[in-house]
Amino acid sequence: MITLSLIGIGTGNVDHVTLAAVHALNEAEVILLPRKGEAKSDLIDLRRVLCEQLLNDTASTRIVEFDLPTRDAERQYLNAVDEWHNAIASVWAELMDKHLPGGGRVGMLVWGDPSLYDSSLRIAKRLTDSGRAVEVKVVPGITSLQVLTAEHKIPLNALAEPIQITTGRRLRERGWPEDAATVAVMLDSGGAFTTLPQDDTYIWWGAYLGMDKQCLIKGSLSEVSDEIIQRRAALRETHGWIMDIYLLAKQPLI
Amino acid sequence: MITLSLIGIGTGNVDHVTLAAVHALNEAEVILLPRKGEAKSDLIDLRRVLCEQLLNDTASTRIVEFDLPTRDAERQYLNAVDEWHNAIASVWAELMDKHLPGGGRVGMLVWGDPSLYDSSLRIAKRLTDSGRAVEVKVVPGITSLQVLTAEHKIPLNALAEPIQITTGRRLRERGWPEDAATVAVMLDSGGAFTTLPQDDTYIWWGAYLGMDKQCLIKGSLSEVSDEIIQRRAALRETHGWIMDIYLLAKQPLI
Repeated sequence: MITLSLIGIGTGNVDHVTLAAVHALNEAEVILLPRKGEAKSDLIDLRRVLCEQLLNDTASTRIVEFDLPTRDAERQYLNAVDEWHNAIASVWAELMDKHLPGGGRVGMLVWGDPSLYDSSLRIAKRLTDSGRAVEVKVVPGITSLQVLTAEHKIPLNALAEPIQITTGRRLRERGWPEDAATVAVMLDSGGAFTTLPQDDTYIWWGAYLGMDKQCLIKGSLSEVSDEIIQRRAALRETHGWIMDIYLLAKQPLI
Repeated sequence: MITLSLIGIGTGNVDHVTLAAVHALNEAEVILLPRKGEAKSDLIDLRRVLCEQLLNDTASTRIVEFDLPTRDAERQYLNAVDEWHNAIASVWAELMDKHLPGGGRVGMLVWGDPSLYDSSLRIAKRLTDSGRAVEVKVVPGITSLQVLTAEHKIPLNALAEPIQITTGRRLRERGWPEDAATVAVMLDSGGAFTTLPQDDTYIWWGAYLGMDKQCLIKGSLSEVSDEIIQRRAALRETHGWIMDIYLLAKQPLI
């Protein structure tokens, strides 16, 4: 039997890790660390640092790095994602067979929280669906959305109002969601908010949240939209990659 | 100058506290612990236990308990909330003047995360708006929603789809929100999901999440709706209070 812990590690700030995540890391016999290619090498470095800082001297945890299969960008999105998840599940299975042939405890570090726009749970389900003796455990982690609101010192919701969490792709295609006073946008490849009316809708934007190079901008879309686009491009150029999210509201949040 | 840290403490499970929250608790000179009346006395007990377990022996943190003003249940909701927040802000200000007349570091423990359906940020803003020298800091915490998905081992979002986080009141008044594949419902005084069509919409329900008395139920509304209503009533009777949330989805999440 393999016990597979999907461990939310927050956004790269070691202080945002929970005590439960620290325990789960130290109890794992093997931690699988995916390498995602050159551009985001900062991120695997950050995970290595997290492991170094959080593993006790007495922990016998082995860290196994592996190359993550790449997604076919040419194919239709959902089909490509489905095949990609299958490919990753196969790699996980091989690594478990190789490093823990008699079973044991495996840990996977998940950015943010395993529940929010993350594929680990879906990949793990492929292992259990295929009849493998794998028990999945989930350790919650702080999401970038929580760091965004904490750093801007704002709530996610207007008083007693609902919140929509959506993707950049969806915001471009459908515009402002019905029935939502505030909208949090994740996975935006860049500037989906420019497709909205550039009025006094307020935006709270953040990049590299929780990391040393964190950058925050806020203001009405009419005032800061261009600034965010330019800053994002410059940061991406400097660091080779960017991860950013934002919150939009049509009324004051606080 | 007062530095006021609003510290997200998760849902009552000490392991869900982050390292940043542990630091913030230990750095505070005074921690303000509100007493909310008899029925929820478990909750102040849990916060006392958290403080005991997380404060170092060397910490000189003083814990100051106080009675939280009560909200006028007879008045129109938003007006009553507004006055209630004013009353709480006045109590916070008095306690700061009394216990830290020369300024210093104050900590407040916030269930879940200070960004989500919590009033601490709005109350703190009343202090800064009134001209007090108060700097607010926010320490993110794990929300009950993250514990719900972790314990049920499900994602919050269907693949690449948006999520609506809303209230029981809103679900009753408006029904299923437009543009949302999954809906997370918080602050439900009981059974708002029974106002939806009792079809194959799936519900993942949880009460006392993260605590020893945690209870989970899942299934289609047509199958488990009555069971949840009955279990909820029984648990409330047993414990004197209940906090529960749930996630609804019209398509498989995983």
